[in-house]
Amino acid sequence: MSDAIQLPGGPGDRVTESREGAVVTLTMNRGAQFNALSEGLLTDLQASLDRIASDAGVRVVVLAGAGRAFCAGHDLREMRASPSLEYYNTLFAQCTRMMRTIQRMPQPVIARVHGIATAAGCQLVATCDLAVASDEAKFAVSGVNLGLFCSTPSVALSRNVSRKQAFEMLVTGEFIDAQQALERGLVNRVVPAACLDQEIASLAAVIQAKPAVAIAMGKELFYRQAEMGTDAAYQLAGQTMACNMMEAPALEGVQAFIDKRKPRWD
Amino acid sequence: MSDAIQLPGGPGDRVTESREGAVVTLTMNRGAQFNALSEGLLTDLQASLDRIASDAGVRVVVLAGAGRAFCAGHDLREMRASPSLEYYNTLFAQCTRMMRTIQRMPQPVIARVHGIATAAGCQLVATCDLAVASDEAKFAVSGVNLGLFCSTPSVALSRNVSRKQAFEMLVTGEFIDAQQALERGLVNRVVPAACLDQEIASLAAVIQAKPAVAIAMGKELFYRQAEMGTDAAYQLAGQTMACNMMEAPALEGVQAFIDKRKPRWD
Amino acid sequence: MSDAIQLPGGPGDRVTESREGAVVTLTMNRGAQFNALSEGLLTDLQASLDRIASDAGVRVVVLAGAGRAFCAGHDLREMRASPSLEYYNTLFAQCTRMMRTIQRMPQPVIARVHGIATAAGCQLVATCDLAVASDEAKFAVSGVNLGLFCSTPSVALSRNVSRKQAFEMLVTGEFIDAQQALERGLVNRVVPAACLDQEIASLAAVIQAKPAVAIAMGKELFYRQAEMGTDAAYQLAGQTMACNMMEAPALEGVQAFIDKRKPRWD
Repeated sequence: MSDAIQLPGGPGDRVTESREGAVVTLTMNRGAQFNALSEGLLTDLQASLDRIASDAGVRVVVLAGAGRAFCAGHDLREMRASPSLEYYNTLFAQCTRMMRTIQRMPQPVIARVHGIATAAGCQLVATCDLAVASDEAKFAVSGVNLGLFCSTPSVALSRNVSRKQAFEMLVTGEFIDAQQALERGLVNRVVPAACLDQEIASLAAVIQAKPAVAIAMGKELFYRQAEMGTDAAYQLAGQTMACNMMEAPALEGVQAFIDKRKPRWD
Repeated sequence: MSDAIQLPGGPGDRVTESREGAVVTLTMNRGAQFNALSEGLLTDLQASLDRIASDAGVRVVVLAGAGRAFCAGHDLREMRASPSLEYYNTLFAQCTRMMRTIQRMPQPVIARVHGIATAAGCQLVATCDLAVASDEAKFAVSGVNLGLFCSTPSVALSRNVSRKQAFEMLVTGEFIDAQQALERGLVNRVVPAACLDQEIASLAAVIQAKPAVAIAMGKELFYRQAEMGTDAAYQLAGQTMACNMMEAPALEGVQAFIDKRKPRWD
Repeated sequence: MSDAIQLPGGPGDRVTESREGAVVTLTMNRGAQFNALSEGLLTDLQASLDRIASDAGVRVVVLAGAGRAFCAGHDLREMRASPSLEYYNTLFAQCTRMMRTIQRMPQPVIARVHGIATAAGCQLVATCDLAVASDEAKFAVSGVNLGLFCSTPSVALSRNVSRKQAFEMLVTGEFIDAQQALERGLVNRVVPAACLDQEIASLAAVIQAKPAVAIAMGKELFYRQAEMGTDAAYQLAGQTMACNMMEAPALEGVQAFIDKRKPRWD
């Protein structure tokens, strides 16, 4: 990424933003702590995601971790220092808000997974719209090993992975490898570590080639309909698709298809 | 199918019905347009499905496409000619009604997939109760390539395929092959093209050997309970099964099992 | 299990309980009837599960079948002898109550599957939190073969297995083998028959090493959140995890992690 533009947030900050064209990479920058999600890191991720959500120039977000791991979950030292119900409720609400923002923002978010993704780090993988993992990556919801069942991660995990597989991971705390994560639906693609950035760049380029409005309307519809009964889902989906069809890019795209030419979308 | 009875609807019509015993094959007959779901084709499919739904002599429906593809989705030329929100809302509502009819009719419907199944054609595969594909078949929800996110197809797709895999197909528009469709749960069986009709005939014969009332009660229950919480689902399922058990075929079937003989169901 | 303590319930009874440390094995003991779920067996299973649910000394339950099969479903002879809607409604409600108890009790329940698991026996596998199968095990929801669609089993099956695969099993009544059950998410692990008890003992030992309160809070949360929309699920999960963190085992477990030592939980 030699030509990447460094946005506000230098190497010492908790989140580094780099931008190549319309693709922004957010790098969690607490490598020495395996990118543990401290309050500060959560706050900075939230700020970055909120800013990007309203930046029409950004089409795809890549979420990455500096150092040897993607993300090892909450910052346990910080958590242990404030043993009160109120503190923990506030902390998990903050984390949930960040996770929900990923699914509510108009741009697809791709998790770039290497090393380990554990507890809320595994939740982050499950939460991103797409995930590409290096073949050495490992995944666990390991809180139970410390007596802390991964309850909030289970919400995201169980919406990606089948019931018995999710339950086993949650009560054993054991790792699955990248290939298992792929077979179970937790990640979309697995490649050698050396190809990870290239694979993600290719995936982002494919998405970037589609009109932003179609992706944004579709992403919002996708998660909303998933929570509805089938009839209600179809009603919303039909309305969404009708609105989508009335947008200029779709009218041009369909016309181009009829004319057997490439759409002119710029 | 040399001995098939041709029902009303000759080779020039949009839907051809052929019947062998209790199995009706509905063939979308717009091969030159890759069986694009024009208003006319949707109307004719709806009429055929409605008629079959109340025909006790039909036990299994096979849905097939004439020519080189199963179905390429909506008729884009027709859609582009009527650019109004009202028109599109009406069109998608018509399509949804046809899709819902497939799941609400008492007979199982098997998609016979060859060539491509794209956009609403892929939705049709996801919607059918069962799907058998030839090994060269390909599947995509490719509307996004034209700027039109496959919102209504996403409703059916995301109820068959895991979340991340569905999302990837929807935002990339890329094809998956028959083997991937099998592994992801979009189709039940994949066979060489030359074996497709035989495989479907075998599957239909297995279903046809069961009492119609058990299949009809079970199919209705299956989709209704899927939209309920577990307690409500069990309550409905228990009532359904109790009613089913009081029907003559079940009483005879269970008695035959006890007597170690074949049931007499005719 | 030479050192197992035999609890009330001798070899002639319908359910045998044996206990090794904190692991209780419940063995359905109607081997000559393939452990068909008679009213009596359901009553005894319910009593055992209810008693264990409130026994803090039990950490894991293994559900097994004596003789050549895990469980062949309802007792058809008994069912056929009382052909009334009221009787069947009561019977299925009794069975549902037992199934729900498995998911509502605080301890994880592992199905030990060998031979066949059919109809309500397959439902039992789907209902248990975890399932380990011997490689010769076979699974079917075969009621449809007798004219009795497996409606109540479909509730559990369709919450484990993808839609089209579940539908195919339900309308064909055909067996899938252990490897297919693994790939489809119906069981967690498949091992040679000779290794079945050892594999289950290992899995139980891993779970037993975690604090009981974390497993109990987590199991309850897991099934409750699965029935909720994502926002409500996260709200409940966040509260659960905050409460869990305030429990002594989690505070000690997290402190031990920080101190790079093993937690002292006894």
